[in-house]
Amino acid sequence: MSEYDVLCIGNAIVDIIAQCDDAFLADNGIIKGAMNLIDPERANLLYSRMGPAIEASGGSAGNTAAGVASLGGRAAFFGKVSKDQLGDIYTHDIRAQGVAFDTVPLPGEPATARSMIFVTPDGERSMNTYLGACVELGPEDVEADKAAGAKVTYFEGYLWDPPRAKEAIRLTAEHAHAAGREVSMTLSDSFCVDRYREEFLDLMRSGTVDIVFANDNEVRSLYQTDSFDEAVELIRKDCKLAAVTRSEKGSVIVRGDETVKVSAIPLAKLVDTTGAGDLYAAGFLYGYTAGFDLKRCGDLGSLAAGLVIQQVGPRPRQNLRDEAIRAGLLQP
Amino acid sequence: MSEYDVLCIGNAIVDIIAQCDDAFLADNGIIKGAMNLIDPERANLLYSRMGPAIEASGGSAGNTAAGVASLGGRAAFFGKVSKDQLGDIYTHDIRAQGVAFDTVPLPGEPATARSMIFVTPDGERSMNTYLGACVELGPEDVEADKAAGAKVTYFEGYLWDPPRAKEAIRLTAEHAHAAGREVSMTLSDSFCVDRYREEFLDLMRSGTVDIVFANDNEVRSLYQTDSFDEAVELIRKDCKLAAVTRSEKGSVIVRGDETVKVSAIPLAKLVDTTGAGDLYAAGFLYGYTAGFDLKRCGDLGSLAAGLVIQQVGPRPRQNLRDEAIRAGLLQP
Repeated sequence: MSEYDVLCIGNAIVDIIAQCDDAFLADNGIIKGAMNLIDPERANLLYSRMGPAIEASGGSAGNTAAGVASLGGRAAFFGKVSKDQLGDIYTHDIRAQGVAFDTVPLPGEPATARSMIFVTPDGERSMNTYLGACVELGPEDVEADKAAGAKVTYFEGYLWDPPRAKEAIRLTAEHAHAAGREVSMTLSDSFCVDRYREEFLDLMRSGTVDIVFANDNEVRSLYQTDSFDEAVELIRKDCKLAAVTRSEKGSVIVRGDETVKVSAIPLAKLVDTTGAGDLYAAGFLYGYTAGFDLKRCGDLGSLAAGLVIQQVGPRPRQNLRDEAIRAGLLQP
Repeated sequence: MSEYDVLCIGNAIVDIIAQCDDAFLADNGIIKGAMNLIDPERANLLYSRMGPAIEASGGSAGNTAAGVASLGGRAAFFGKVSKDQLGDIYTHDIRAQGVAFDTVPLPGEPATARSMIFVTPDGERSMNTYLGACVELGPEDVEADKAAGAKVTYFEGYLWDPPRAKEAIRLTAEHAHAAGREVSMTLSDSFCVDRYREEFLDLMRSGTVDIVFANDNEVRSLYQTDSFDEAVELIRKDCKLAAVTRSEKGSVIVRGDETVKVSAIPLAKLVDTTGAGDLYAAGFLYGYTAGFDLKRCGDLGSLAAGLVIQQVGPRPRQNLRDEAIRAGLLQP
């Protein structure tokens, strides 16, 4: 029997969230909709220009772990914080959600990672991430029992930014595959794909990764094509299973010859897209590890993603299990 | 000419906000709706039992300062943080809102104050505050130019909890009155009133405080009566001006023989009452220092309070000036 449904690995980041207008992004050279990596000097500069903010634990794969747990799944997380106030907050929040999180924190510097997230009136989020303690995640942080004991290991493409996290991923994938488990990743961001295209393709083609999550922009960036349909046909051949999200157009799931189209849920109001992809993956992987069919996996993803984008912050405040029961996707 | 419209003085606190049910409050001995003072040990215990949270700069008078600034008023703040990550967040947020904040931070321990705020499904908030660095606020933190240069100085009754803040208040009031300014306070919390009833009455009757903000419970606690009407008649005699809020019943403003009744604004959904009284005071004092009549001051208070309780967190995300213009309370 497996000990966990999903093991997530990612940059452990506290989000600092404020609203701004599009001119602010342009004036400050922030690429809209992207994850912009920044150094401490730029972090200080941007923070000095940022409006009043709120803080919330975030990080792509951490959000996914929290989502799996909120749906009632057994989730674990590897990620590096420092022993500081933001690290305490991060650790508290993910454990309080029921996620097993035991990565040893750094004793001091660099500080826990933070991402300044600017949300424009259209609900789009533009992230500016100082990686801080995340740069120290390495293979020594791999807990072999969790890697072997999780039905699916899920990691973020963003982990190719810090220097040694990819070694942790490769080691985790070895443990997982040796135990007959599956490994999945998200392509994270179209610019991230651009930075690591060949490595990501190699992860898929070599079988290190079985399941891939991507959005429209990311999958098209991966194959350097403007055609969504072409990109989907290419990713179909490169991995066992891919789920590609398209915002309000829902998602397309491909597995071998199989193609499943899933709708997005209707929104009362789009508030903040932060966490959309992370929560789609959470819903999908919860369903997948529960043995549901692909349509139901996708519907769970749509539900979780649709809820998180109607609030400020990257993790839904609702109990996702209750919401999924209300939507008829889970049994009480 | 005055340099500031409102100088606010209060405990500088970062809020840590999570949802819980009523049973959680009972099980943990938290007085519902109150500000419960806690020590570091209890803070650790409660945090270990708290669900996933978000963080936001708070503190009663700090919220009021932010509200005044959001309305377009010139606001200043005195309050003590420490040089730590939460202190940096606090300092950033209040300055980013346009509030002049120059109190020298503590170099180290105790840490910046935090309040664990549990929000129950009825929207009521129950606060658990570790005062941390706030205990060091004292008369050496009084900036005489700001005290003399603000039309109204406003402080929270909560400042009677830390040991030396009351000395800062008395000194500030001296500067303010010497410059012909007015001094106001909020009674803060009915249990706080119970702790310092005689001192609060003395502040009013001695003329140290000219204007008093209170809610229904606080004013009844002050005069130890069950009758709201009786309490209002008593406070009418004890200060020059009092504004007493009654949640959805609006507020009553008394000044000498004058009595003004103000309605609350209609709510789409009550989410979190945190900041309601603080934002009422912000709206009122913005109007008061702009020279508006009492009804319009109260309406601005109702608007700001009504907006903050329809979101999670103690400071409205909206620009209050824009909202007041939309509501016809300010001119574009």
